[in-house]
Amino acid sequence: MVEAVEKLTKKSEDPSKWYLQLVRMAKLADYGPVRGTFAIRPYGYAIWERIQADLDARFKATGHQNAYFPLLIPESYLKKEAEVVEAFDPELAWVTIGGREELEERLAVRPTSESIICDFYSNWVQSYRDLPILINQWCNVMRWEKVTRPFLRTAEFLWQEGHTVHATAEESREEALKMQGVYRDTFYETLAIPVMTGMKSPSERFPGAIETFTCEGLMGDGRALQAATSHDLGQNFSRAFDITFLDEQQDRVYAHQTSWGFSTRVIGGLILVHGDDRGLKIPPKLAPTEAVIVPIWRGNNKGEVRREAEALFSELKDAGFRVEADLDEEHSPGYKFNEHEMRGVPVRVELGPKDIENEQAVLVRRDVAGKEGKEFVPRNALPGRLRELLGEIQENMLAQATEFREANTRRAESYGELKEIIEEKRGFVLAPWDGTPETEQHIKEETKATIRLLPFAGEAGEEGKDLVSGKPGTTAVFARAY
Amino acid sequence: MVEAVEKLTKKSEDPSKWYLQLVRMAKLADYGPVRGTFAIRPYGYAIWERIQADLDARFKATGHQNAYFPLLIPESYLKKEAEVVEAFDPELAWVTIGGREELEERLAVRPTSESIICDFYSNWVQSYRDLPILINQWCNVMRWEKVTRPFLRTAEFLWQEGHTVHATAEESREEALKMQGVYRDTFYETLAIPVMTGMKSPSERFPGAIETFTCEGLMGDGRALQAATSHDLGQNFSRAFDITFLDEQQDRVYAHQTSWGFSTRVIGGLILVHGDDRGLKIPPKLAPTEAVIVPIWRGNNKGEVRREAEALFSELKDAGFRVEADLDEEHSPGYKFNEHEMRGVPVRVELGPKDIENEQAVLVRRDVAGKEGKEFVPRNALPGRLRELLGEIQENMLAQATEFREANTRRAESYGELKEIIEEKRGFVLAPWDGTPETEQHIKEETKATIRLLPFAGEAGEEGKDLVSGKPGTTAVFARAY
Repeated sequence: MVEAVEKLTKKSEDPSKWYLQLVRMAKLADYGPVRGTFAIRPYGYAIWERIQADLDARFKATGHQNAYFPLLIPESYLKKEAEVVEAFDPELAWVTIGGREELEERLAVRPTSESIICDFYSNWVQSYRDLPILINQWCNVMRWEKVTRPFLRTAEFLWQEGHTVHATAEESREEALKMQGVYRDTFYETLAIPVMTGMKSPSERFPGAIETFTCEGLMGDGRALQAATSHDLGQNFSRAFDITFLDEQQDRVYAHQTSWGFSTRVIGGLILVHGDDRGLKIPPKLAPTEAVIVPIWRGNNKGEVRREAEALFSELKDAGFRVEADLDEEHSPGYKFNEHEMRGVPVRVELGPKDIENEQAVLVRRDVAGKEGKEFVPRNALPGRLRELLGEIQENMLAQATEFREANTRRAESYGELKEIIEEKRGFVLAPWDGTPETEQHIKEETKATIRLLPFAGEAGEEGKDLVSGKPGTTAVFARAY
Repeated sequence: MVEAVEKLTKKSEDPSKWYLQLVRMAKLADYGPVRGTFAIRPYGYAIWERIQADLDARFKATGHQNAYFPLLIPESYLKKEAEVVEAFDPELAWVTIGGREELEERLAVRPTSESIICDFYSNWVQSYRDLPILINQWCNVMRWEKVTRPFLRTAEFLWQEGHTVHATAEESREEALKMQGVYRDTFYETLAIPVMTGMKSPSERFPGAIETFTCEGLMGDGRALQAATSHDLGQNFSRAFDITFLDEQQDRVYAHQTSWGFSTRVIGGLILVHGDDRGLKIPPKLAPTEAVIVPIWRGNNKGEVRREAEALFSELKDAGFRVEADLDEEHSPGYKFNEHEMRGVPVRVELGPKDIENEQAVLVRRDVAGKEGKEFVPRNALPGRLRELLGEIQENMLAQATEFREANTRRAESYGELKEIIEEKRGFVLAPWDGTPETEQHIKEETKATIRLLPFAGEAGEEGKDLVSGKPGTTAVFARAY
């Protein structure tokens, strides 16, 4: 038997090394030849497909349609909105040659598509009757990042970008908030990540946005991850790209817009939030494999155990489970246990000669360690109990992550305390902020913590004195971030 | 009432103008700022989404998984396979600047991904235990074409590309044939396009392939469209990219590979095969809207008819139909009839005061003109009859297209006859070919017809004398192509 198994670095000891090693061992992604580019391997892509399906259904339920816009954006289009150029110019990849000829105008590989989509919208929007336009695009985008890490920061990534056009400021505000809500629901219900939601401070807004709504996750190492954002663009882009329409009074007015995005970056968040020293822990709703059957045999009963394992596999598959049977004969059960725990499969089904005799199987859940995670289930009750257990795991993973987030969300009463928490404990720190970029910048320089979000009124948004300036302020949430 | 409706050019009078006008009027696609680039608008994209779902399910049922590989391919990778460079070099778009710096090596925007995927595979494939690798990718690709036309030939298009690795020549051949079969099934069962299938002549093979299997559709104007191809790559790429594995005898050997692709080009095929003078005709399985309800009201009964139309809409929607209700008050029923016929909606449901009184509705099918396409259906039988009718339309559209293809597939007994058919009637022409590139080239130069495919043995593959050289030959299928 082949027993040699690569030892995973402990998450607690070196989270950065743990992360990279796990991405490789679990075959989630692999490095490409161009710096910062990656292949998303089938096991990682299957997670993304399930996230896509979840989001796409929610987008359609809220009235959106999918479309596809060109990859290449002429430089002159990007320059139309000043903040966009400034923000993205350092990160652009440029096509300068096409069909063996030097191009007259260079073309950027889209870093985000506002500029090119607005050009189409300026033709498609003529009358209030054409509004709202509620379009989403699933695509690849490119940002030439200096320091990259699989999923979390990559030169090319996959995402969806919604781009909507509305008649009034109220409608675009409502849409941006609605889509933040859609993202929030997906995080809670599907990714089991209890994101905090709120608004970005002006300095952290998307270029050209009048308001950016964000979902911020707290990673296992106490750092925040901006997980998805939704922007109210107001009339900034409609003015830059001349998107006007005749309203009901026959006046020509500028439209109001939103954009919102959710990317493969969240797969990095999923690893960092749920993973532990044993490896990945994938929420059942996203798991490519919900349950893996591991037969436990010896030489003299291998045939019988294999037959039973195969029968159970067929039964569970026919019942609609995403199930694997690991019938490999080279590796020991112990090796397989480690392997599938590392891959984050939510449930292991153990089946040995004793179990066959007793007409039972053993269910071992990934989210609860030790004896408490193990249960003996009568064979005829197995499909029902497995379905139930997967639901329990999904809920428990959200509960575990929520407990962690709550334990790592603290209120700082003084600037010293804020610095101490950021330095020693990390996590989210709530503290009053006077609303000026100066104190925000001061804290960022001294602690490397940024304002992750400003809570909505009534949600932790208490008043108090700014810890730096002493001026009146309202609660902001600080953290070091990915 | 607004009655002005743009008049669609007749397909029979000017198929090229008809095509471009229809793409615009039906809001399938719109021109981008860079030559040859297009946005696929929601109505066009919804068709693509349904094609994707259909193919993706078939790929998964045959054991394939999805993954994602980088967009940008270093020049040195493309150069590893000589035929690939030669074929694609004139059509490449090159990224030469990234992050404000001139790149040391320029990067091609993928025209197809063999070169970059093979690089990953050379790492992933080590032992016979790693095989087969059965991976598919949904993505965008770019080919800097000189003359473009929406869907049919565009600088950027969407497609899927399957890339598989196998231990033996038999397995890669079997896989390439299997995927041609998957495509064929999708064409017949879902797109209602009766493609001819066979092999390409050596000169028409994919660069680097040892065999290319093709699905060729016959368009309404008698020209052929290469609709999807599947390639047996043999060991050409594994040798160029060093994809080797230890076989069961512990010998290191080169792997065998396939690739296969199906693109948004087929939407162009769908328009050309099924469209008529009234506009699009979308097969029910792909139609974004299966049925549209058009109320027929006058001033005094508008309220009642509207209420009934809304009730019917809810009922059909709840029954799972993709249904629209056109309750617009600005346009006449006649205008709406034209509009939805132009958009290719398979069934129109008319509902007027008389129908309400008689507890019935009128179903009008798009695929049969005149009175024969119209039936009165009791209101309570409507959902059942509609479901049935959609199935009948799907079948009938395939039957109509098959009849057209058969009527336009002819056997030429002499070279003069071949030229005459190609010139005057177009369509597929069957004629013996001696297998040499010389006669193939000769016919191409004189008639603009190319060999679309060589039928499989036993399928029209009769022997005879080459019409040009007089030497013994086997049947080839000639046509002018898009």
